[in-house]
Amino acid sequence: MTSLFVLGGARSGKSRYAQARAESLAGDLLYLATAQAFDAEMEERIARHRADRGPRWSTLDVPLDLPAAILANAAPGRVLLVDCLTLWTSNLMFAERDLDAETEALATAVTQAAGPVILVANEVGLGIVPDNALARRFRDAAGRINQAIAATADEVQFIAAGLPLPLK
Amino acid sequence: MTSLFVLGGARSGKSRYAQARAESLAGDLLYLATAQAFDAEMEERIARHRADRGPRWSTLDVPLDLPAAILANAAPGRVLLVDCLTLWTSNLMFAERDLDAETEALATAVTQAAGPVILVANEVGLGIVPDNALARRFRDAAGRINQAIAATADEVQFIAAGLPLPLK
Amino acid sequence: MTSLFVLGGARSGKSRYAQARAESLAGDLLYLATAQAFDAEMEERIARHRADRGPRWSTLDVPLDLPAAILANAAPGRVLLVDCLTLWTSNLMFAERDLDAETEALATAVTQAAGPVILVANEVGLGIVPDNALARRFRDAAGRINQAIAATADEVQFIAAGLPLPLK
Repeated sequence: MTSLFVLGGARSGKSRYAQARAESLAGDLLYLATAQAFDAEMEERIARHRADRGPRWSTLDVPLDLPAAILANAAPGRVLLVDCLTLWTSNLMFAERDLDAETEALATAVTQAAGPVILVANEVGLGIVPDNALARRFRDAAGRINQAIAATADEVQFIAAGLPLPLK
Repeated sequence: MTSLFVLGGARSGKSRYAQARAESLAGDLLYLATAQAFDAEMEERIARHRADRGPRWSTLDVPLDLPAAILANAAPGRVLLVDCLTLWTSNLMFAERDLDAETEALATAVTQAAGPVILVANEVGLGIVPDNALARRFRDAAGRINQAIAATADEVQFIAAGLPLPLK
Repeated sequence: MTSLFVLGGARSGKSRYAQARAESLAGDLLYLATAQAFDAEMEERIARHRADRGPRWSTLDVPLDLPAAILANAAPGRVLLVDCLTLWTSNLMFAERDLDAETEALATAVTQAAGPVILVANEVGLGIVPDNALARRFRDAAGRINQAIAATADEVQFIAAGLPLPLK
């Protein structure tokens, strides 16, 4: 496994699964966190997740410049875990970045990384069409990034109720 | 099969699949219904489902005390069908019960039941993040219960468009 | 393969997958488009999709009378691609057609078609229960049609992040 893409719903156990896969590999563990705390609910969630990961992990906050961070930090003896691409998409939209260019840069970074990379994303397209246009744009962007990374990754797992279903 | 967990979306055919699995087993059939009718739409849906099940089934309304009802009713010659855990989660939240304690009690009851138990739940985490905090809390709670029961059950099936996909 | 049903979320790559499967078959390619452009966003999407399909395809707009269009156009040397059933459902509801009768007519048309038919649909039931009753009715109707066509089709694929998962 050089790259693994873990896709799932909210509270599907996708992050836990991805962390367990990372911890099963030898080497340092570096968590690339895309979450930004805009309110108390998010802050509490981020702190709880960091505590849950335990002392074997280092954490780097990467709200935006993810492709560069992957290329700069990937190494043969180090496992990168990116959690998650869906928040990254949201951050990119808020910062008015070029989504197509960023998606392509991410896929290239995953392919060229000098060590194993595990990426987590939400599947958000399986509910009713959202009422507002921004949510629809976000859903489209998240789906496009998921397709691009699934096409690039060596292994893809869909997680439901904590259980993996191999897609690739 | 001692315990089977059936997970799926709205109108995925998950209840029909679970009922067919229950009916394929020998013994009495007891339906543990968690639905509460708060309005005419729900009342009509509950009555239609009860009529659809036919005369081989008995029904017990269990909006809240599900772990105790499973332990009290499970027996070697009787199949229990719990439909569904997601409405139960909603009932627990409305009644301000301790969700972690109830989840643990449910998992224990499924493990210790003296006969076969089939449990149905909705997957609700694959759409866009809901606008309001209560819906997000509900989604988190439902996802946590799904993970706990999927970890406990002997067999797990994901249903899409009426067709089962084995998760475990 | 006489009939193939392709189910997936928004931006899951389901249309692309269905088109690739159609193009892998010999014969003419006829796209039965159910989309109606009610606003500029939809118009742009429809035009982009038509351009993406390329010159090998013919297109027929069929917002409502889909069963008749399938029976009239199916032929041994022609592949029909219906995209998508979920918009068709929405069109039927808007036109106050009898959904049960239309679903049955569609299943019959797919079974009796004189050539291969590929049908695409959205899975919309895996998010939180929608707030408004119309969206809930739509979600129920879409789910029922998906179950009916999945039961009828020779092959069913669930698409996530561009990757197919065989359901049947």
